[in-house]
Amino acid sequence: MSKKGFHVAVVGATGAVGQQMIQTLVKENFPIKQLSLLSSARSAGKKIVVNGQEYTIQEAKPESFEGVDIALFSAGGSVSKDLGPEAVKRGAIVVDNTSAFRMDTNTPLVVPEVNENDLHQHNGIIANPNCSTIQMVVALEPIRQKFGLKKVIVSTYQAVSGAGAAAVQELHEQAQSILTNEPFEPKVLPVKSDQSHYQIAFNAIPQIDKFEENGFTFEEMKMINETKKIMHLPELQVSATCVRIPVAVGHSESVYFEIEENGVSANEIKALLMDAPGVILQDDPENQLYPMPANCVGENDVFVGRIRKDLDEDRGFHMWVVSDNLLKGAAWNSVQIAESLIRLGLVIEK
Amino acid sequence: MSKKGFHVAVVGATGAVGQQMIQTLVKENFPIKQLSLLSSARSAGKKIVVNGQEYTIQEAKPESFEGVDIALFSAGGSVSKDLGPEAVKRGAIVVDNTSAFRMDTNTPLVVPEVNENDLHQHNGIIANPNCSTIQMVVALEPIRQKFGLKKVIVSTYQAVSGAGAAAVQELHEQAQSILTNEPFEPKVLPVKSDQSHYQIAFNAIPQIDKFEENGFTFEEMKMINETKKIMHLPELQVSATCVRIPVAVGHSESVYFEIEENGVSANEIKALLMDAPGVILQDDPENQLYPMPANCVGENDVFVGRIRKDLDEDRGFHMWVVSDNLLKGAAWNSVQIAESLIRLGLVIEK
Repeated sequence: MSKKGFHVAVVGATGAVGQQMIQTLVKENFPIKQLSLLSSARSAGKKIVVNGQEYTIQEAKPESFEGVDIALFSAGGSVSKDLGPEAVKRGAIVVDNTSAFRMDTNTPLVVPEVNENDLHQHNGIIANPNCSTIQMVVALEPIRQKFGLKKVIVSTYQAVSGAGAAAVQELHEQAQSILTNEPFEPKVLPVKSDQSHYQIAFNAIPQIDKFEENGFTFEEMKMINETKKIMHLPELQVSATCVRIPVAVGHSESVYFEIEENGVSANEIKALLMDAPGVILQDDPENQLYPMPANCVGENDVFVGRIRKDLDEDRGFHMWVVSDNLLKGAAWNSVQIAESLIRLGLVIEK
Repeated sequence: MSKKGFHVAVVGATGAVGQQMIQTLVKENFPIKQLSLLSSARSAGKKIVVNGQEYTIQEAKPESFEGVDIALFSAGGSVSKDLGPEAVKRGAIVVDNTSAFRMDTNTPLVVPEVNENDLHQHNGIIANPNCSTIQMVVALEPIRQKFGLKKVIVSTYQAVSGAGAAAVQELHEQAQSILTNEPFEPKVLPVKSDQSHYQIAFNAIPQIDKFEENGFTFEEMKMINETKKIMHLPELQVSATCVRIPVAVGHSESVYFEIEENGVSANEIKALLMDAPGVILQDDPENQLYPMPANCVGENDVFVGRIRKDLDEDRGFHMWVVSDNLLKGAAWNSVQIAESLIRLGLVIEK
């Protein structure tokens, strides 16, 4: 902490993403003058050590945002809806990791590698997209820029940490029960607030978030709608099937996409992604090099591999995209937005 | 065992699929007069109890097939190539669960619900398709019959038992090591005979079988080529991404398909699959009903759910297909082929 810099608040400081936000701020040497760690009344009073200094978690209230420059929210949609505008009213810029404002036409939805310039249109709140959307658009954007983009069909392999720390604990406890042949009762996944809960250890659950009337889940519709908004491609054809698998951290995605141009080779796509911001190309089948969630944990980047041309469709390609859902999918993208705001002069030291 | 019936040989009797073949023969009350359990020299001499009777595993040799009516092979491609023709020479019909003869133009590749009549063209050997192919074509065939089929894009979530019993043991031991923070060394997956081995517990590996020069794996090319052959659709556009996930038994598939007809609803597809042979429809999002691998273990059927129409492509649909890869994907389909052979009069009691 120095005397220069910003007063930063983290709302939801005790959650899986909040914890990562704090660690990322430290790791990235974010210019912090003062740090407020906020949470629900339930977690208030807990103590956390950040960079050698002890902090007491405070209950998030409208007054908590007095003097705050940048507020990173990750405490659920209703907290963002209630307190986000209160923070803005008090002069803070809000970077919100919930879905509360993502599709609001007055709120930019930003992945810095893709649409950093949308930050200029902000009205106090900037939305951080859904984790599964972020890593996909980081990989797709350089391709769109060069060859156009017409269609995307994605099937996800999502980690349980996307459903919070309790889901990770459930995965590990269940796995242990199954290995030692003990009974267990699923309580968290697929969706804590939904009616039925199912085994996730050694299983795959094709439900993330609740279902909409059209048969898609909210998670799937988030991927569909957010991708179009972030990429400024309202006509893009996107469809998604979102599946939870027994992985703690790291989302994987099998992505089929069609570009606008004919005659492009897989090597041209690989060359593009080799130099793309935020992307690490891991694509060498001969040496069994491809991205895997176990290798991406703790990394800020989006890992792409298995790039190959469709055997029938000249403009069709397949790729495999992996990233740490708590970092690029959440905490890192939020901190990165805050860094962009500073660089673009959209937040100024008071 | 009765005096009537057939002399059946199981080759690879100690393997994961061989064991399921024996259990399936018993469970299905297959008319067996005599049962020969064969394996490599390494496993010969072991004793197995089948239906209360003890059998000693014999080493598979050309002479082992004297008097055999039906030989179910599942001991690896090279064993099938060596001993399959020897069995045929001695009057047996071979149902081969390896990839040795699948794409051979003189060998029918059969999923009874789809192309039982191809059995009439057999020349002694009938090939059982790859596990991931079988469950997909069972779900697609009724749709093709009614509405035609133009394109398929599949991403798989495959169980480790497809790589044999050692892979299942590796999954469980690794999971235990990770849960108790002990070191471990991957030795089996993704492909025992390939150079590098990777963690499968709490991970996802986008490699099943080795890579071909076109960037697809052999597993992916099997799904592509076998689907066209079984469905008699050489022009069908098929592409596949095959991924191993930490599940012991039960393959899942996210399948996008395009039919030939316009204006078809998801409910029409559901109605078709409700009455389709070998299919159990589990599709009620409101009540969180959809197929999951943990629920399909030990079942012969193919479970289909999450059927929904694509939001952009009128002829496009998505579905989620799950089946026990050791049963419908291997043992049950092989025994079912044997049952079809009997019913069609293509094998006769001696």
